[in-house]
Amino acid sequence: MAIVKNGRFLFKSIPTGFPEPEKTTVYDESESIDLEAVDLNGGFLVKTLLLSVDPYFRGRMRDPTIQSYVPAFVVDQPLNGYGVGVVLRSEHPDAKAGDHIYGIFQHQQYTIYPNLVDVNVIENKYGLPLSAFIGPVGMPGKTAYMAWKKYSHAKKGEAVFVSTGAGPVGSLVIQLAKMDGMKVIGSAGSEDKVKFMKEIGADVVFNHKTTDISEVLQREGPINVYWENVGGDTLSAALEAADIGARFIICGMISGYNTPDGIPVRRLDHIFAKSLTLQGFIVTRLEPEFNEEFYQVMPKAIAEGKIEWREEVWDGLDKVGDAILAVQKGLNKAKAVVRVASE
Amino acid sequence: MAIVKNGRFLFKSIPTGFPEPEKTTVYDESESIDLEAVDLNGGFLVKTLLLSVDPYFRGRMRDPTIQSYVPAFVVDQPLNGYGVGVVLRSEHPDAKAGDHIYGIFQHQQYTIYPNLVDVNVIENKYGLPLSAFIGPVGMPGKTAYMAWKKYSHAKKGEAVFVSTGAGPVGSLVIQLAKMDGMKVIGSAGSEDKVKFMKEIGADVVFNHKTTDISEVLQREGPINVYWENVGGDTLSAALEAADIGARFIICGMISGYNTPDGIPVRRLDHIFAKSLTLQGFIVTRLEPEFNEEFYQVMPKAIAEGKIEWREEVWDGLDKVGDAILAVQKGLNKAKAVVRVASE
Repeated sequence: MAIVKNGRFLFKSIPTGFPEPEKTTVYDESESIDLEAVDLNGGFLVKTLLLSVDPYFRGRMRDPTIQSYVPAFVVDQPLNGYGVGVVLRSEHPDAKAGDHIYGIFQHQQYTIYPNLVDVNVIENKYGLPLSAFIGPVGMPGKTAYMAWKKYSHAKKGEAVFVSTGAGPVGSLVIQLAKMDGMKVIGSAGSEDKVKFMKEIGADVVFNHKTTDISEVLQREGPINVYWENVGGDTLSAALEAADIGARFIICGMISGYNTPDGIPVRRLDHIFAKSLTLQGFIVTRLEPEFNEEFYQVMPKAIAEGKIEWREEVWDGLDKVGDAILAVQKGLNKAKAVVRVASE
Repeated sequence: MAIVKNGRFLFKSIPTGFPEPEKTTVYDESESIDLEAVDLNGGFLVKTLLLSVDPYFRGRMRDPTIQSYVPAFVVDQPLNGYGVGVVLRSEHPDAKAGDHIYGIFQHQQYTIYPNLVDVNVIENKYGLPLSAFIGPVGMPGKTAYMAWKKYSHAKKGEAVFVSTGAGPVGSLVIQLAKMDGMKVIGSAGSEDKVKFMKEIGADVVFNHKTTDISEVLQREGPINVYWENVGGDTLSAALEAADIGARFIICGMISGYNTPDGIPVRRLDHIFAKSLTLQGFIVTRLEPEFNEEFYQVMPKAIAEGKIEWREEVWDGLDKVGDAILAVQKGLNKAKAVVRVASE
């Protein structure tokens, strides 16, 4: 091993619209690391294997003086987000060489962790693929599972509309809703994604780029639950199609992430006219309540094939910018994963 | 008595913007009634004394094919809404001459009710003025009390922002919030209203026509509860100033009632970023749960002067259109009441 380059994927400038690979972010190989000799100071050295690229990245590409629920990315520093890696060397009693870890990773090939605060050692008692831990057993899985359990108040026979229904979160929501006996209406932005929603059990599926959302919802609704990942006109259509007392689970609003002032929404008067509940959430705030249940239920369900999932892999740390742009534009085929290295 | 005119206030045409007295509505004296001889068919004859004019009237001035939580007004028929009257003659065992009744009134001077479905006999054991029954002990009072109790999750020391804080609902919300030990920020649209909010205990008061809402909320917030009666930019400012986990009680959005497509709202992304709850409601849906408690608490609190309220009276049934327009434009000084007749 000895001295090797430690490639890093750096944040370079705050975008106004969509992020631009090479301008917003850049891959850098100016740093090196001596894998055998670098001082661990009681911590452990991790080789990054997989990185998750998620919609919320766009919100981190902001002026750092603007407060939000996650810190802004820092110019000239590596991005960071969920990832999976393998411990190469360790002086820490709870992480030994060969252990796989999951948690918050710097977007670089090698990182020394001082402790297990930001990351956990993966148990993997069902032998799941490592990428599951940044997918259905990771943040996207928790997002779908925890908010569905807490906020859907699902009733058999009711109808749910799931936007971005082929995505890493939406596709799990569809399957959880079917397990609860609901009629599921799913929307996505390509024929391939529409087909996938049908395969995982959605009752009514459509491509929002070629089909009028309101027309589908007026025909198939009214809806009792709406899983919101889009915002803008999709939210307006859901408000129009909502039944009295419907629950709107507000997970994200990607249609507005790349527009400086966001996308305005009309017909919010349906909120009082129909006694709607719009419930926003951030998954990390639900983890204390649901982590134990989640890890009891989801890894097993995935191992047994009761929950399906899929991913699209970009090979190489230098491809993070491409994956980010694809996710922001909805051009990714499934959960975006960057494979930084094999073991 | 014998035969008298039975004046009616009729809906004439659906407005596109603000309602226009004489065009949207018209006062009509073409009908007469024989108060002594008219057949009651087992019901009772009521003389209308007071009518309530409320913001939601605008939503009823619509194309009747559009569904909503209250029926559309019918062209060439009298408006209807909450009112108070006195029974002149009765063949009904539960309503006797001289009884005061409260409930849904046709906007006309005299009405024969077949039963006590839409109206109730007023008990008035605290001897409140009759207009209280279309104010703090009527629909506006229930609106404030029931939604505050159910949805505010008020905590001592937290901050609440009350829009339309001098109105019949907002002014009660301010007082309920102070009873719960909250810091109260109130907005209204005139200096007189601002003064009233201060008199009833609001800690921070401002005129939204002369003061920047965001500036006040950024200085005095973050807010934990928002009482929404306005929509549009006021809602956007509240979203910006909300604390994590804040509760938005969505009572109405008057800024958009007189604009065909409503007023769009930006920065809904705060709903997920701050884990907000936006809870819409219609008071009639809360009555089964809270009616008993409300009648135990509010009439007494008002009789003892623990809850203050005020009203603005328009004299004469022909003035309903003026009162409606004042309420829609926010030019009324307080709860709008039309005095149709004295006893």
